[in-house]
Amino acid sequence: MRSESEGPRTSAASETLLAEIREQPDAWRRLLDESDAGIGALGGILAEHPPRLVRAAAHGTSDHAASYAVYVLRLLCDWTVVRDSVSLPVYYGATPPTAGELALALSQSGETPDVVQWLRAARANGALTVAVTNAPESALGREAEHVIALAAGEERSIAATKTYTNTLAALALIGAHVAGSGREMADDLRTTADLAQDALAKLEEPVGPVAEACADATRMYVVARGIELATAREIALKLTEVSYVAANAMTATSMAHGPVAALDPGFPAWAIASEEQTLPAVREAAARAHAAGAPVVATGPSAHALDEADFTLATPAAPHMLLSPLLSVLPGQLFARSLAIAKGIDPGAPRHLRKVTTAS
Amino acid sequence: MRSESEGPRTSAASETLLAEIREQPDAWRRLLDESDAGIGALGGILAEHPPRLVRAAAHGTSDHAASYAVYVLRLLCDWTVVRDSVSLPVYYGATPPTAGELALALSQSGETPDVVQWLRAARANGALTVAVTNAPESALGREAEHVIALAAGEERSIAATKTYTNTLAALALIGAHVAGSGREMADDLRTTADLAQDALAKLEEPVGPVAEACADATRMYVVARGIELATAREIALKLTEVSYVAANAMTATSMAHGPVAALDPGFPAWAIASEEQTLPAVREAAARAHAAGAPVVATGPSAHALDEADFTLATPAAPHMLLSPLLSVLPGQLFARSLAIAKGIDPGAPRHLRKVTTAS
Repeated sequence: MRSESEGPRTSAASETLLAEIREQPDAWRRLLDESDAGIGALGGILAEHPPRLVRAAAHGTSDHAASYAVYVLRLLCDWTVVRDSVSLPVYYGATPPTAGELALALSQSGETPDVVQWLRAARANGALTVAVTNAPESALGREAEHVIALAAGEERSIAATKTYTNTLAALALIGAHVAGSGREMADDLRTTADLAQDALAKLEEPVGPVAEACADATRMYVVARGIELATAREIALKLTEVSYVAANAMTATSMAHGPVAALDPGFPAWAIASEEQTLPAVREAAARAHAAGAPVVATGPSAHALDEADFTLATPAAPHMLLSPLLSVLPGQLFARSLAIAKGIDPGAPRHLRKVTTAS
Repeated sequence: MRSESEGPRTSAASETLLAEIREQPDAWRRLLDESDAGIGALGGILAEHPPRLVRAAAHGTSDHAASYAVYVLRLLCDWTVVRDSVSLPVYYGATPPTAGELALALSQSGETPDVVQWLRAARANGALTVAVTNAPESALGREAEHVIALAAGEERSIAATKTYTNTLAALALIGAHVAGSGREMADDLRTTADLAQDALAKLEEPVGPVAEACADATRMYVVARGIELATAREIALKLTEVSYVAANAMTATSMAHGPVAALDPGFPAWAIASEEQTLPAVREAAARAHAAGAPVVATGPSAHALDEADFTLATPAAPHMLLSPLLSVLPGQLFARSLAIAKGIDPGAPRHLRKVTTAS
């Protein structure tokens, strides 16, 4: 029990959120055990009939996974992924996804009405339809030609954690199976699960003081570039829904195009530094945030490369570059929860929210 | 001179920003006079050889114009537009835009290095390259096969206003010329310029008290759906860079997926209500924001349809639905400036920023 050191505000709901964060490596293993065969079969079909365009539809956390799909399916399969405007076919009468295209719907609950509507229109129009969902029996699961079950187990917290990383894992496996490297990706995912388990155990304690130091912050930027942009978007949403911080995700380059002006010593920047080609852009953004007086939290596998960091929460290097986002999101999930606790908010029970979003 | 009523903080730079906001209708007319013939010629070429995919590259404000391109080119030409990941070809070695594709680079200055690099790679790889820029003699202008000059005149404020709406106007004209309705769109754009001129004159005064009422806000949401999402993104950036508010743009549906939790009476929501199919989603989002205690500012042509609004800044209905974003951004630009003044910030000279962003 860690609740003592975390102060009196820790509720049962908050413990549920922490348990689900901790459970992620097991959830990835479950995906491998229960869904990898199905993903392999789908990969075979897609490899034989490669779509000329992938259209992804999703909202919220699932849309962040769609950001990941843009990179993972391009780099593994050379496919172009559009995060499709759901409103174009649903509200404006534009042509739905069509024959030769892959319509990829991502939804934890499988019940978001306009995503279901979008998938139905795509299927009727001849597109190949795939749903990636934690609820294969949902409306979305019933509409799709192929369903990949996330096998994350019931997610009880309103803030999604394990369904997010399981969606990333499923997308990496889909891409790898198409590319003929499914077995290697599965092995790398198992290794990543081990690394995550270790990293989670090591990160829980150091995250606390960083959250304490940021307890008065009501605004944050989360900055990344390239493949980690999905991570930045997801961490920003966790900070917003769990700790009520107005958190904005942006590319390192976009930050320089205006938002840097708003930074000040009470406005921290969370920077995700990965090991690859985008590091110089993130390093420059961190330096600019620091110059603006903002506290800089450096995370990711190359966190130590950000010289101006006030706090460092490094994550291990993934065995495959494309699996890095499964690890780099972890300190952000823990931090969002700890920041809520530091602010006296119950992180397991965000205000004004329901688990299944039925908003159109 | 309005500076008296705006208090002692109004500087020369702030007057420049206001002058450029006011100048927009004239800038659109200049685009028509100077560039419409060239856009018509390009439209003819594109109509004869329609691209199978449009890839748009841009950062910051220009990327918001790319969000608009997604809608305007789909609805006018049935083309799919991807807001391309610049980092995929530039940093990760992914295939650049290729033969049969249109590579559309948007940049006010034409000097953003990775956008120039992206366009160069696209041209070398056989894509048709088009640059839309206020600086046709720039590096980007020199690299592109076809250049559309924005003809917005020199933009001296760091915060882009007239180059943004001129980019929208150029995109609407490109789409309409391809679709064979260039002349009608040009006429509609002239009508929209007249409406804007009138609206700007009428909005300047009522924006002031709304800004005063929000003077203590450090966080805001800007909510829209569909074609006005570009407007939401652009207004959020103006609020961030001009008035140092952590402003987050989101679809009405995304707001329900988490961010609604962070709202409180000190955290206003700016809602853009247009006249079409997306109104119910925006209306629901405004109602949820209101229920969370957030002050709601209703804008757009259907502002009066948002029953829960605390403030209303309506804009006129555009003669063509796709031109509505040129009008609905205007109160946001004025409000960002007035909010800066209400906060004692000089809105013409944001901290930490240069006009041409050379960040990689």
